[in-house]
Amino acid sequence: MDKILRVDVSGDKPSYVEEPLGDYAGMGGRGLTSAMVSKEVPADSHPLGPENKLVIAPGLLSGSAAVNAGRLSVGCKSPLTGGIKEANAGGQGANVLARLGYAAIVLEGERQGEELYILRIGKKGMDVVQDASLEKLTNYQLMERFHGEYGKNGAMISIGPAGEMRLANSTVAVTDMEGRPTRHAGRGGVGAVMGSKGIKAILLDGSEAPVRRPQDPEAFKQANKQFAEGLRRHPVTGQGMAAYGTNVLTNVINESGAYPTYNFRQGQYPDAERISGETQAELEKSRGGKASHGCHRGCIMHCSGEFVDKDGNYVTKQPEYETIWAHGGNCGIGDLDAIARMDYLNDDFGLDTIEMGATIGVAMEAGLLDFGDADRVMELLQEVGKGTPLGRILGSGAAVTAKAFGVERAPVVKNQAMPAYDPRAIKGIGVTYATSPMGADHTAGYAVATNIMKVGGDVDPLSNEGQAALSRDLQVATAALDSTGMCLFIAFAILDQPDTFQALIDMLNAFYGLEMTADDVNGLGKSILDKERDFNTRAGFTAMDDRLPRYFRREALAPHQAVFDVSDQELDRVFAK
Amino acid sequence: MDKILRVDVSGDKPSYVEEPLGDYAGMGGRGLTSAMVSKEVPADSHPLGPENKLVIAPGLLSGSAAVNAGRLSVGCKSPLTGGIKEANAGGQGANVLARLGYAAIVLEGERQGEELYILRIGKKGMDVVQDASLEKLTNYQLMERFHGEYGKNGAMISIGPAGEMRLANSTVAVTDMEGRPTRHAGRGGVGAVMGSKGIKAILLDGSEAPVRRPQDPEAFKQANKQFAEGLRRHPVTGQGMAAYGTNVLTNVINESGAYPTYNFRQGQYPDAERISGETQAELEKSRGGKASHGCHRGCIMHCSGEFVDKDGNYVTKQPEYETIWAHGGNCGIGDLDAIARMDYLNDDFGLDTIEMGATIGVAMEAGLLDFGDADRVMELLQEVGKGTPLGRILGSGAAVTAKAFGVERAPVVKNQAMPAYDPRAIKGIGVTYATSPMGADHTAGYAVATNIMKVGGDVDPLSNEGQAALSRDLQVATAALDSTGMCLFIAFAILDQPDTFQALIDMLNAFYGLEMTADDVNGLGKSILDKERDFNTRAGFTAMDDRLPRYFRREALAPHQAVFDVSDQELDRVFAK
Repeated sequence: MDKILRVDVSGDKPSYVEEPLGDYAGMGGRGLTSAMVSKEVPADSHPLGPENKLVIAPGLLSGSAAVNAGRLSVGCKSPLTGGIKEANAGGQGANVLARLGYAAIVLEGERQGEELYILRIGKKGMDVVQDASLEKLTNYQLMERFHGEYGKNGAMISIGPAGEMRLANSTVAVTDMEGRPTRHAGRGGVGAVMGSKGIKAILLDGSEAPVRRPQDPEAFKQANKQFAEGLRRHPVTGQGMAAYGTNVLTNVINESGAYPTYNFRQGQYPDAERISGETQAELEKSRGGKASHGCHRGCIMHCSGEFVDKDGNYVTKQPEYETIWAHGGNCGIGDLDAIARMDYLNDDFGLDTIEMGATIGVAMEAGLLDFGDADRVMELLQEVGKGTPLGRILGSGAAVTAKAFGVERAPVVKNQAMPAYDPRAIKGIGVTYATSPMGADHTAGYAVATNIMKVGGDVDPLSNEGQAALSRDLQVATAALDSTGMCLFIAFAILDQPDTFQALIDMLNAFYGLEMTADDVNGLGKSILDKERDFNTRAGFTAMDDRLPRYFRREALAPHQAVFDVSDQELDRVFAK
Repeated sequence: MDKILRVDVSGDKPSYVEEPLGDYAGMGGRGLTSAMVSKEVPADSHPLGPENKLVIAPGLLSGSAAVNAGRLSVGCKSPLTGGIKEANAGGQGANVLARLGYAAIVLEGERQGEELYILRIGKKGMDVVQDASLEKLTNYQLMERFHGEYGKNGAMISIGPAGEMRLANSTVAVTDMEGRPTRHAGRGGVGAVMGSKGIKAILLDGSEAPVRRPQDPEAFKQANKQFAEGLRRHPVTGQGMAAYGTNVLTNVINESGAYPTYNFRQGQYPDAERISGETQAELEKSRGGKASHGCHRGCIMHCSGEFVDKDGNYVTKQPEYETIWAHGGNCGIGDLDAIARMDYLNDDFGLDTIEMGATIGVAMEAGLLDFGDADRVMELLQEVGKGTPLGRILGSGAAVTAKAFGVERAPVVKNQAMPAYDPRAIKGIGVTYATSPMGADHTAGYAVATNIMKVGGDVDPLSNEGQAALSRDLQVATAALDSTGMCLFIAFAILDQPDTFQALIDMLNAFYGLEMTADDVNGLGKSILDKERDFNTRAGFTAMDDRLPRYFRREALAPHQAVFDVSDQELDRVFAK
């Protein structure tokens, strides 16, 4: 993982060079994508223009024997937010890419014409294939076509029709252990940037790519063992995730009164039980699906699974809590089978489920369809995949949809839709939504852990006190974590168990021959956020972009009748120098 | 004109109060709308939310015997730009409203439900009528319905379906001397704000409203006479406008190489002659239409006219240069009859012709239709009027359309489309596009006058020198002018003829009993711009919003192979303190 593969799409056909890491040595994942975008992409450039770049980077520990280090970071200037973006995904991509020796693939330059290309990357370098028959292929169709090529040891990184159409809600898909395109760098429209470069898929051949070797193999092995033990010991990472997946949260958040329902009109969904993790796990088991499964080799938490229909046929991977919320409670749809079919379509077309569900909630608010009308939602998703005019509105995200239909209530920050936690009833996550350089993003600083699950401390979710400091600390830690390739869910264990956090630092030190302390890790997170916020400032962002929409301060949320009342001054203090 | 009519739409039915001017005494037109919006609308509020207000204000000299003082300012936070907005229109509205004694009508509060209302305003105050049958009526249908009520001495201020649907490209229409809704406060989506308040039309009964009397009638009469004489003396205001209307510019700008053609791909349109002012005047005359006509009583320039079809039937008012460019050269349509029908539909639905033509140019760029396909453009305009999904994309303006179709080349600043002058070949207007608080707007500081027509000096249009100072001076003068109610076209005369400028100041002094100097007028303009820019800063605008899209620096424009090369530093100096 000591080289960068730069693919220039400016010529008749994409060409490439391999470069040493140079100034980027020691960086990985989000740390690397944000450094490159910040340095190489002019902040005032258009996200779909020739100056933008798509940086695809495995984490620092990806491709090693470390458990759960399979996150792949995708960075660019975001077509959705207009700011810097890093979105990351699980699946096999990070590990294979890292084992092939690449710290990053960079797609850059000005596309000529409308041709689509496949990049094949293996131990011997890169091949480029132009193929007109790729047009509008979905991610699952790409899987059918290329599965034989990337096979069991490889991975595919691809865009569906959404990315090809350069829609602002479009993902970069990454294949899982079964070779299915179920893992997505979902947020911020990163797929549109890949589409703007004319690259339809990247096939990674991992057949002759060995596991990356640490500088100090023995110390690394020992630290990895302690780290894994720590994950197994913590109730969330050791049991909760495996039993119910992320959807364990439906009942928890609904009971807390922070489950955004009917486009953020109320904080509890009467039919929550019908779509809860408990119900889902039971349903999957009764049908013979897998309720506990990893998204990549090396995962020991197994929060994923397979969702099968009543006849036992594969429908989609086990939908995540966020997806089930977005299309479920937020749209008034209490039907796991319907939601699973929506999840499949989102994966197939390459759409972020959070943005899509929030967008449909806005369309429901605008009167385009009724809350609860699952059949119509399926039709709308098909329209997005086909790129009809209505599909293009919806595929451009919640903010554009609100604008086109003339409604105020778009639950967005920096034009990116809020995820499954109402910021009025979990105020810590509201601070993260407001102040993260990424736009509304729960993964940027998951204050829900401390507000609701009491992991890493206890801060009252309904109080406006202590939330700014909580969010900042979590955002700093997360930025560092997003550089390691580690799954964010390890945070539950490292927040509660200092020895597990130390084991992670020990792993990094043993792998790279470093002597980092916890303070150094903190410093790494801060430096990443500094670069990101600096980029956004240069792109024209101000404190006014670090705000929730005004109606979250005006409209009280039942059952707590809470408004978002963390002051602007507090928000501005989160990243004050 | 000493009172403000505040209409609160928050109750079961709109209610109103009349207030004295108070802090707003001495203000009119843009000066008043920008002062009220700046003071009363929170900068971070949503343009369609309850905190926004629509302020409709005649100019300081409107309703008096002053010639050409019929501009009506409409201000709000803009649904298109997100910044402060003043758009003004000719027609009868300003004079009638001023004679009724109102310095402003303010629409404010939170609309309950979806009902539509008519406000009837006369000497005895205001009536409110709820009427479900108003839904989706076009401006000409409203004219048919209400012409008998506002009649010859009154005026109607209304929104078409576009405003009702709260589209970001939607106008507030004002009727002309014939009672037709041909004059529009076009830019920035002001119609959507009126729609968000549920007010479909305001009928002004001017039957018992006397001409406003000056403080010093004799001095006023004398100054007005000198002012009128000055307008008649100047070749542009005295002859050019009457002979060919604003469309005299087609040949002039095309010859200069700054006529944006095919979505700003080149600077000359091969078929310009077919849509020029000379051709248009000849056509109108040969058909028995009026080639020289005022838009309101009191106009002595007569730049308007009537466009009739080959059988002599009314099609639309004489389309303006900007309209003919937007749907003509910019879309590759060299057919005045087709453009006139488009103009009618824009007026009827309540759409800004500049934004609409630029939007269709972007749609053509995206491959949605071919350049030159006038029939398809007519269909698309119908889609906007009906509010189909495609219509909602297009009706949301050029920036949203570019986003939905994934193209970079949207010719916008602050999300507002550029008018009929390419900023690469007339760099002074490029500075105005970039730095005006209104977004890309030629009327905010018409540097074309000095760059091309050599009015008010001579600055080479292709040089980047002197443009910043030129634009600033013009923006300051225009802000003051927009407060008087005077038609912007008087600027040609007052820029070239110091005595005509003095006559205007004398009129203001005689009317209000003041002793203003030219410096004071300048100070007024500066103070208005300060308020506007302060609002935008509070709304989150930065220097990055005072920029043209990057591709204007990257792509050279034929025939001069010019790029926009006024430096960012120069742009930032325009309004530097």
